[in-house]
Amino acid sequence: MPQGQPEVVPQDGLTTRQRRNRPLLIVHTGAMKGKSTAAFGLAMRGWNQGWSIAVFQFVKSARWRVGEEAGLLALGRVHEQTGEGGPVEWHKMGSGWSWSRKAGAESDHAADAVEGWREIQRRLAGERHQFYVLDEFTYPMKWGWIDVDEVVDTLRNRPGHQHVVITGRDADPRLVEAADLVVEMTKVKHPMDTGQKGQRGIEW
Amino acid sequence: MPQGQPEVVPQDGLTTRQRRNRPLLIVHTGAMKGKSTAAFGLAMRGWNQGWSIAVFQFVKSARWRVGEEAGLLALGRVHEQTGEGGPVEWHKMGSGWSWSRKAGAESDHAADAVEGWREIQRRLAGERHQFYVLDEFTYPMKWGWIDVDEVVDTLRNRPGHQHVVITGRDADPRLVEAADLVVEMTKVKHPMDTGQKGQRGIEW
Repeated sequence: MPQGQPEVVPQDGLTTRQRRNRPLLIVHTGAMKGKSTAAFGLAMRGWNQGWSIAVFQFVKSARWRVGEEAGLLALGRVHEQTGEGGPVEWHKMGSGWSWSRKAGAESDHAADAVEGWREIQRRLAGERHQFYVLDEFTYPMKWGWIDVDEVVDTLRNRPGHQHVVITGRDADPRLVEAADLVVEMTKVKHPMDTGQKGQRGIEW
Repeated sequence: MPQGQPEVVPQDGLTTRQRRNRPLLIVHTGAMKGKSTAAFGLAMRGWNQGWSIAVFQFVKSARWRVGEEAGLLALGRVHEQTGEGGPVEWHKMGSGWSWSRKAGAESDHAADAVEGWREIQRRLAGERHQFYVLDEFTYPMKWGWIDVDEVVDTLRNRPGHQHVVITGRDADPRLVEAADLVVEMTKVKHPMDTGQKGQRGIEW
């Protein structure tokens, strides 16, 4: 597929170069797998640009997405050792975020999710990274743990040049409205329909 | 999203372990971007399993997907140096495949596509890799350069345990029928709609 040409030239007073370099808010939603995998593929592409990559996984299971985590962290080590690509950080909520985990502490998922979001807000304000993956971040919004309007406001007003990809089902319409690029992954056919269970290397 | 449970237990005489380890034919289709990116994300996951990964890009432009190419090849070098993950090969058609490129030769895209497919057939027969990405492979089928029934027959009868991911728009119904997993990427919103051009690190 060749690179697309825009059908409309916008009257926004920006040069092509300014428009081309606009930081993007991307949402991967829909009922089908591939949302997170495509986001991590984009992160790999960003790594090759030398961007600082940060992943925040809003999930409970530490096992989830371990393949992409290992791959991206290996790329981060390549950067440390050779200067190729960019640095990579990977944070997962699990039972508390790595920067605040207290041994034996009771886990409160709603509070943990809010704490993760506050950290992301601080990093966006400080222009800490060029590429953020907020994986499964639609769920704490859906469950009312994190305020959608606040997320939209923070993202709309983020400074500098920071791309943000949000994944998860049931993206709120306000988030879709604020996004520059929204992809919906739709199921056509899945092996679990015929009794196939998830398998290593494919599902995780 | 937690790991799914199958709704139906199939009467195919296989144990759960046999079924779990069945090699998959995966198709990423639809009009939206994300098809290839998700496939390369899957390849990164397979790399972490120690699988031998091979990408075949049926595209003309050598520039296309350069970010994922660099990322996956860097992971291949990590494997060579440390033993972590698996080996990675990346072949692109461009003006002839790397294994057969003749300086100054006239390029015939149809013949090049067929040559790429013959090489894939040989590798499948020899169980050379555990994970293949046939990127943009729907197009040479759509254009009649490669016979769909032959592709389906080869893939249905491939030996051993070799996963294959095929990407591209307009997947033939026979290919969809033969696939274990089909994901359609659907456009909800794209910045090119409002005149945004493709940008480095996001589009390539």
